[in-house]
Amino acid sequence: MEASRQNAARLLALDWGTTALRAWLLDEGGDALDHRHARLGVMHVADRDFSGALRGTCGDWLAAHPGLPAIACGMIGSRQGWIEAPYVACPAGFDALASACVAVDAGNGTTLRIVPGLRYEGDAAMPDVMRGEETQVFGAARAGQLAGVYVLPGTHSKWVFYAQGRIQSFRTYMTGELFACLRAHTILGRLMAADAPHAPDAFRRGWEAGLACGDDLLHRLFGVRTLALLDRLTPAEGPGYLSGLLIGAEVRSACGQRPPPRVTLIGDAELCERYREVLEARGSATTLAPADSARIGLHRIARAARLIAP
Amino acid sequence: MEASRQNAARLLALDWGTTALRAWLLDEGGDALDHRHARLGVMHVADRDFSGALRGTCGDWLAAHPGLPAIACGMIGSRQGWIEAPYVACPAGFDALASACVAVDAGNGTTLRIVPGLRYEGDAAMPDVMRGEETQVFGAARAGQLAGVYVLPGTHSKWVFYAQGRIQSFRTYMTGELFACLRAHTILGRLMAADAPHAPDAFRRGWEAGLACGDDLLHRLFGVRTLALLDRLTPAEGPGYLSGLLIGAEVRSACGQRPPPRVTLIGDAELCERYREVLEARGSATTLAPADSARIGLHRIARAARLIAP
Repeated sequence: MEASRQNAARLLALDWGTTALRAWLLDEGGDALDHRHARLGVMHVADRDFSGALRGTCGDWLAAHPGLPAIACGMIGSRQGWIEAPYVACPAGFDALASACVAVDAGNGTTLRIVPGLRYEGDAAMPDVMRGEETQVFGAARAGQLAGVYVLPGTHSKWVFYAQGRIQSFRTYMTGELFACLRAHTILGRLMAADAPHAPDAFRRGWEAGLACGDDLLHRLFGVRTLALLDRLTPAEGPGYLSGLLIGAEVRSACGQRPPPRVTLIGDAELCERYREVLEARGSATTLAPADSARIGLHRIARAARLIAP
Repeated sequence: MEASRQNAARLLALDWGTTALRAWLLDEGGDALDHRHARLGVMHVADRDFSGALRGTCGDWLAAHPGLPAIACGMIGSRQGWIEAPYVACPAGFDALASACVAVDAGNGTTLRIVPGLRYEGDAAMPDVMRGEETQVFGAARAGQLAGVYVLPGTHSKWVFYAQGRIQSFRTYMTGELFACLRAHTILGRLMAADAPHAPDAFRRGWEAGLACGDDLLHRLFGVRTLALLDRLTPAEGPGYLSGLLIGAEVRSACGQRPPPRVTLIGDAELCERYREVLEARGSATTLAPADSARIGLHRIARAARLIAP
């Protein structure tokens, strides 16, 4: 990189999750001057040497910019991470997150601010938490946008309800992890092909069943086996059907009787495409968020925290 | 055993499932003269040598009683078993099962009749099957009883609706396997104690959440983690809560708005006791079936098949 661009560096931004560390060197406007990706997620860092992991990934950036402000979101702020950044209660906006960042000395004169996660206690018997997704949502919101529904599909799929410039509530679904676990470790996986390409028709049959399943999910899951036993679902179709069933059940539960008119999807493009299909069948228009929503969100929170000029 | 009792032997009855083989030597009235249990379930029999497994378990009985009629129920009649006994469609009574038994030559002059499983096609998108449980239900019904609701908790929990002397319909729930898989292979298990004794209060909180969960099961499952993260569920309470959540969700789905006035539970006493608690909270009285329902059912089907004097 040319020295002139490097000189524009104003912020080190880290999306530090369970499995991966993504790092960006940002200019004042939040554009990336450089970026890196390492398989140094919280669960991969040996002996909790987070300082060493950070130096190994971005040590040259920090050496070139002594005192560079640094901010991180994600599981790095969990009890298993570097330092615990306690959950902030919903509703919460930029300011609440910015003022609750927890600082940790990262060595060599670098102070790292860690963005807290969010807690939602709408139902006392069913509290919910997230860490990292709040930053992506704040990054995905268009400048000045004050309301929206955001869906972040994945291992633990999140539905985030944003209004009046604050995250009002959210709900987590265990969809992705349940899919992986059912496929790898239960009788359902035994009648599925190991490396089948996406089966669009089976996926559609699956989500139609999922949208219809009401309180019957435990029963419908066994149906994946029955359909295979009765030769109505081939081994190549099994994974698509199960994926559809679970995503359909998630969409039904999250949307209730009134699907939101518009949903913004944040995450892996292929997975977002599956959600798009189901959401649009239920009557919601969809938008795909920018790929680097976490980067944009970190920059916005850093500004609110006055780590860089507002 | 005295020779006089041995001389009364009229039937070899086998409950031959996925993991275990239970065998009884029965007299004319269906009482057990002798019984054995072997870990020789269908998945444990090497090289599909079912004939060898049978000889190893009951060879002396067969040698002492040449030409003894023999009958088996369970996964031994599946595609992975000795010979496939195709599913019989519901509604089905003793006679339908008896006349659809499939005979296999077990060697040394023994013919083994294998009871077919049942198929229920009430919902075209959600057919259901069972193998072995139909025999337990016919064994659990009191002599002359023509109607009842039977629940067989377990890996794949079954709800069987019996009327006019026939099994009219049934539904399978993946409750037991999902519990085991979530506990062993997902993030939910990581915050659970490995060997916790039953936690009755946590189990109760779980089934209350399960009965209330509607179409939200994928969301409520993540709640098991959130409650633990927020220190509202201890590692020792986790398994009980998850078990309650899943059983509650199953009972809600199976009972709908009108819980049956009486339910007969068939199976492991400790597991049946958990279901009893939830079912009685929903307003159903419960009865525990005799421990050897499979033995009684096999004897009744053998009579209907005229393998022994009616």
